[in-house]
Amino acid sequence: MTPTIVPQLQQARKAAISVRSLSDERRRDLIELLSRALEASEEAILQANQQDLDAMPDTDPKKDRLLLNAERIAGLGESLRQIAGLPDPAGTVLLERELQAGLNLQKITVPLGVVGVIYESRPNVTADVAALCLRSGNGCVLKGGKEAVHSNRAIVKVIHEVLAEFGVPAETVTLLPTDRAHVQELLTATRYVDILIPRGSESLIQYVRRNALVPTIETGAGVCHTYVTASADVQKAAAIVVNAKVQRPSVCNALDTLVVDRATMDELLPLLTAPMAEHGVEIFADALSYPILHVLGYPHLQEASQEDFGREFLDFKCSVKVVSGMDEALEHIETYSSRHSEAIVTEDEAEAERFLSEVDAAAVYVNASTRFTDGGEFGLGAEIGISTQKLHARGPFALEKLVTEKWVVRGNGHIRR
Amino acid sequence: MTPTIVPQLQQARKAAISVRSLSDERRRDLIELLSRALEASEEAILQANQQDLDAMPDTDPKKDRLLLNAERIAGLGESLRQIAGLPDPAGTVLLERELQAGLNLQKITVPLGVVGVIYESRPNVTADVAALCLRSGNGCVLKGGKEAVHSNRAIVKVIHEVLAEFGVPAETVTLLPTDRAHVQELLTATRYVDILIPRGSESLIQYVRRNALVPTIETGAGVCHTYVTASADVQKAAAIVVNAKVQRPSVCNALDTLVVDRATMDELLPLLTAPMAEHGVEIFADALSYPILHVLGYPHLQEASQEDFGREFLDFKCSVKVVSGMDEALEHIETYSSRHSEAIVTEDEAEAERFLSEVDAAAVYVNASTRFTDGGEFGLGAEIGISTQKLHARGPFALEKLVTEKWVVRGNGHIRR
Repeated sequence: MTPTIVPQLQQARKAAISVRSLSDERRRDLIELLSRALEASEEAILQANQQDLDAMPDTDPKKDRLLLNAERIAGLGESLRQIAGLPDPAGTVLLERELQAGLNLQKITVPLGVVGVIYESRPNVTADVAALCLRSGNGCVLKGGKEAVHSNRAIVKVIHEVLAEFGVPAETVTLLPTDRAHVQELLTATRYVDILIPRGSESLIQYVRRNALVPTIETGAGVCHTYVTASADVQKAAAIVVNAKVQRPSVCNALDTLVVDRATMDELLPLLTAPMAEHGVEIFADALSYPILHVLGYPHLQEASQEDFGREFLDFKCSVKVVSGMDEALEHIETYSSRHSEAIVTEDEAEAERFLSEVDAAAVYVNASTRFTDGGEFGLGAEIGISTQKLHARGPFALEKLVTEKWVVRGNGHIRR
Repeated sequence: MTPTIVPQLQQARKAAISVRSLSDERRRDLIELLSRALEASEEAILQANQQDLDAMPDTDPKKDRLLLNAERIAGLGESLRQIAGLPDPAGTVLLERELQAGLNLQKITVPLGVVGVIYESRPNVTADVAALCLRSGNGCVLKGGKEAVHSNRAIVKVIHEVLAEFGVPAETVTLLPTDRAHVQELLTATRYVDILIPRGSESLIQYVRRNALVPTIETGAGVCHTYVTASADVQKAAAIVVNAKVQRPSVCNALDTLVVDRATMDELLPLLTAPMAEHGVEIFADALSYPILHVLGYPHLQEASQEDFGREFLDFKCSVKVVSGMDEALEHIETYSSRHSEAIVTEDEAEAERFLSEVDAAAVYVNASTRFTDGGEFGLGAEIGISTQKLHARGPFALEKLVTEKWVVRGNGHIRR
C-alpha cells in the first residue's frame, strides 16, 4: 500500500494558522530574510540543481527550465524582495454594516488557508509560490516535478530555516513526495487544501481540471489575436503586431493570429514583411492574404490550414486571417480565442468600445501590444499564472488574489425574529 | 442518438450579449416589468403547477417544494422587485493605473456571461435566478427538475414575453430539456457556460462537483456549531442557542451542535430544557451532558453516537458536546464543521477574537445567532445559495457576485520594450 500524504496535508493546515497570525510587518521581514537566505545559499542550491541536471538527458527540452545559475538565483532574490514590498492583501474590510442596533457585520479579506500548487520542472516556482503564500498569510503544499527534486529540496531547506527563525512550523511550506500515486489524494483533499493551481503543460492543467474536487484556478493557454480594422493607423498597427509577435514569442501573451480587415490588408502587409522576415517569423496566411504576401516575396510563407487558427504557436510563427468588417472579426475571435488577451487597432472610438465590450477575454486592448498582460507590467508583482477562467481571479493571478472573504458578525445576544 | 443541447448553449451565449448591452436602468425596468407580469400570469402559472402536482404522489416529500400558490407568487413578485432595486454589480472600476504615458489600465467588473443552474423541484428558482442574471447583464441556462417542467415552462413563457418587449432574444433565458442525458454536456460546456451552480440535494451537488469542467460554486450543507465558553453570559447563550435551533430548523444556518464548556454546562443546560422541550427538540447528548439532561428530566433525550456530530439535522434535533476549554472546542469545530456558520458566546474579548480568526467558516459570530447568515439579512438581496468554498464567493452568493473582472488597456500604439 502506498503511504498516504493526508497526514502531511493535515499538518500543513494546522501549521498555516501560525503564519496567518504573524503581523503584516513580520511577514514582510520573513520574505526579506528569505530572499537574502536564498542568495546566501547559492552554492548549496546550485550543487543540488547540478544533481538534477546530471540526471536529465541533454536533449530534453525541459533542461533550460530546470537550470539554475547565479543570475537566476539573483533574479529569485529580487522577485522575493518585490513580493515583500507589496501590500498585504488580507485584513481589508470590504464592507461594514449595522444589521440591528449593536449587531455589526463586516466582510473582511482573510488568507485562503492552504494553497496547493502542482508544477513541473522549474525550481524557481518553489521559492516564488512559497513567498507569495507566506506574504499573504497562507500555507502551501508543493508538488514539484521528479526531475527537480534535489533543487526543490535545497530551496525548501532554506525556507524551513527562515521559518524556524520566525517561530513558524516547517509544515507551513510542505514539499510533497513527487510520486504520481499521491496526485489523486491531493486533488480530492477538500478538508485540507483550499485551492489548487496547476502550473505547466496543457495536459497537466487538463488532468487537474478533470480530476480535482478541490477548487482550482485554470491558468491556460493564450491564443491571442490582434485585429486591425479598416480605420486603423497602419503604422501603429504594424509596430503593435510586430511587437506582439516577436518581442518574446515563447510566452502566452504573444500574438498568434493577425486578423486584418480586407480594406487595410494592402496597406498593412507590406509594412510587416521586413520586420517579420528579420526575425524569421513563419506566416500561415489564409486564402486572401497569401497572394499578397507571395507577391511581396515574403520568405517564410505557408498556406494556412484550419489548424493554424486557434493554435498557440509559442514560437516565431503566426497566422493571418482577412475579414470583411467587425462582425466577422468578432466571430473569428469568439471561435478561436482562449480568452487570454485580445487587441484591436483602430482610430474609431465606437469600434474600440464595441470590441472592449463584446470580446470575452481576461485582457482586452485598444492600440497596444498584448504583451503587457503580465502581473509585473500591471503593477501586481509576481504572478502564479494568468487565469483564463472567470471565477475568483481573471488575468494575472498575483498576491492580491491569495485571499478569500469572511463574514464577521459581532452582537450582544442578538437573535433572529 | 440523443439530440445535443450544444446549439442551445451557443445561442444562449450569443443572446447574452444583448442583455449585457442594455443600460442599468433598462435592466432595472425589465425586472420590474417581469415582477408585474409574473403576478398577472398567476392563473396560468398555477394551472401549469397543478399539472406537475397531479403527477407527483401525495407522499412525496418534495411536494411542498413544488407547490406554488397565490401567496408564493406574490412573494416571487416581491423578491423580483427587491432585485430590481439592487445596484448593478457590473461596470465598477476596481483599479485604474497609467502603465506608461498614454497607456491606461483599468480593471472593471463585467457580467459573467452565461450562468448555468442545475436545480430540482422548486419552480421559484426559475424566476429568481433569471431575474438575478438579467439584472446583472447575464444570460442563463436553466436545468430544472422533470417534476416541475410545466411550472418552469409557464414561468419562462412569461419571462420570454417580457424579454421581447425589451428587444432581448428569448435565448437569453434558456430552459434546457430535463432529460438526464444532457447533464454531462452542460457540465463540460466550457466554451459556452461560464459558471455552474448546483442547487439542491447533497448528492446533486457532489455529482456536479465530480463531473463538471465548467467552474462551479459549491453551495453545500451547513453543519453549524455554537460554542458557549466558560466566560459566557448564560442568559444570552440560552437565547442564542434556542433561536439558532428552533427559529427555522429546516435551513442550513440552523444550529446542529451545541459545544459547551464543562465550566458552564451546569448553569446553561437547565436554561435550555424548557424552551427546547416546548419545540420538541430531540437532543443527542454526549457522555458528559447526558446525565445532567437526564436528571433535569429532559423529555426527548438520546445518547449521542459518533454520527450525531458533523450531522446536518435540518430538523428539531441537535447534539451536545462538552469540552474543556477553547482548544478542544476549536478542534471539535475544525473536525466537524462544514465551514458555513459558526458562533461563540463569550464575554471575553480575547476568546472572541481568537475564535473569529481561527475558525474557518464563511460566517463567524460572536454573541449572535447563526440564523443571520442569509443574503437578505446581510443586505445583499436574494441569494443563489450559500457558498461554503473559498473561491469567488463565500457565504451568501447574491447579485453582487454575478460578475467577473476584465482588464481593459487603452493605448496609442504602445508596445513592450
